[in-house]
Amino acid sequence: MTTLSLRSFVPPSNTDAFRDALGAGDAAAIERLVRATGVFSAAEIAIARELAEENLAKGAEGSGYHFLVAGGENGIDGYTCFGPISGTNARYELYWIAVAPGARRSGLGRRLQQATESRVRAMGGKILIAETSTTPHYAAARGFYLSLGYALLAEVPDWHDDGDGLAIFGKRL
Amino acid sequence: MTTLSLRSFVPPSNTDAFRDALGAGDAAAIERLVRATGVFSAAEIAIARELAEENLAKGAEGSGYHFLVAGGENGIDGYTCFGPISGTNARYELYWIAVAPGARRSGLGRRLQQATESRVRAMGGKILIAETSTTPHYAAARGFYLSLGYALLAEVPDWHDDGDGLAIFGKRL
Repeated sequence: MTTLSLRSFVPPSNTDAFRDALGAGDAAAIERLVRATGVFSAAEIAIARELAEENLAKGAEGSGYHFLVAGGENGIDGYTCFGPISGTNARYELYWIAVAPGARRSGLGRRLQQATESRVRAMGGKILIAETSTTPHYAAARGFYLSLGYALLAEVPDWHDDGDGLAIFGKRL
Repeated sequence: MTTLSLRSFVPPSNTDAFRDALGAGDAAAIERLVRATGVFSAAEIAIARELAEENLAKGAEGSGYHFLVAGGENGIDGYTCFGPISGTNARYELYWIAVAPGARRSGLGRRLQQATESRVRAMGGKILIAETSTTPHYAAARGFYLSLGYALLAEVPDWHDDGDGLAIFGKRL
């Protein structure tokens, strides 16, 4: 019992499990992964690729888009994209998290998210923000953040479209 | 009386009063103007200039940063910067509005804001979002948006820093 309760306070798996440098083929691999999830629109898929291309062109610091990538047998099994929010004091935003359909239910999403929190904390980040939609389609995403200790900070009605609001989650690191 | 009440429904001054193309010297002029207002931090001043440089490098469409500029005797008397919000259906954001100290109380800020709304509407925009701080220092900004028919859609506590939240205003166009 004691061991179990102690274990629940062991820090999450460290950042080293994931690579943080993108390579030449990663923009296309990220586009394929994001498309394969089936939950993102064509515009969103294009944005996901653009963030990777910005990182490749300017570096993580120069672009403001940092990545943690989980390699897989067929390219990329999952990744996060995150960076500092301009005009704030050490607030960071998770721009993207995606896990390949074949890697779901493995806990990879949670490990990526927790590694991202560790990385942001190491970079001096004090709060990590994650935004998603208020619609039923994104209930799993909202549950994911809540289960990892994020608080729902605010909702902006009709942000994405009429009836499709913005849910803003945040966690102090 | 009838004439007066009709006049109050005349559309605001049109966009043509302001130029929408930046020239080579405008990034520096915008930096000077934003610094002269005395309300923006060094980081914010740098961002204001970057947005103008992105527009100059990639154009309004390519950069996503559109401008309306009020010329003055000493460069620029005021300007707005705005553009479409990625991943939304015709939502636009006002990224910046600034008026030179010497041009205040002339109504230039209101005319710029209303011309921006007209321009965004003409571009197909349905909602214009304006964000500011929740702190007393920005009470005038919040009052400005409320007086122009914007609604406070949400507040995000501690967004910029501890005790300095984000106030999100929006107006249907």
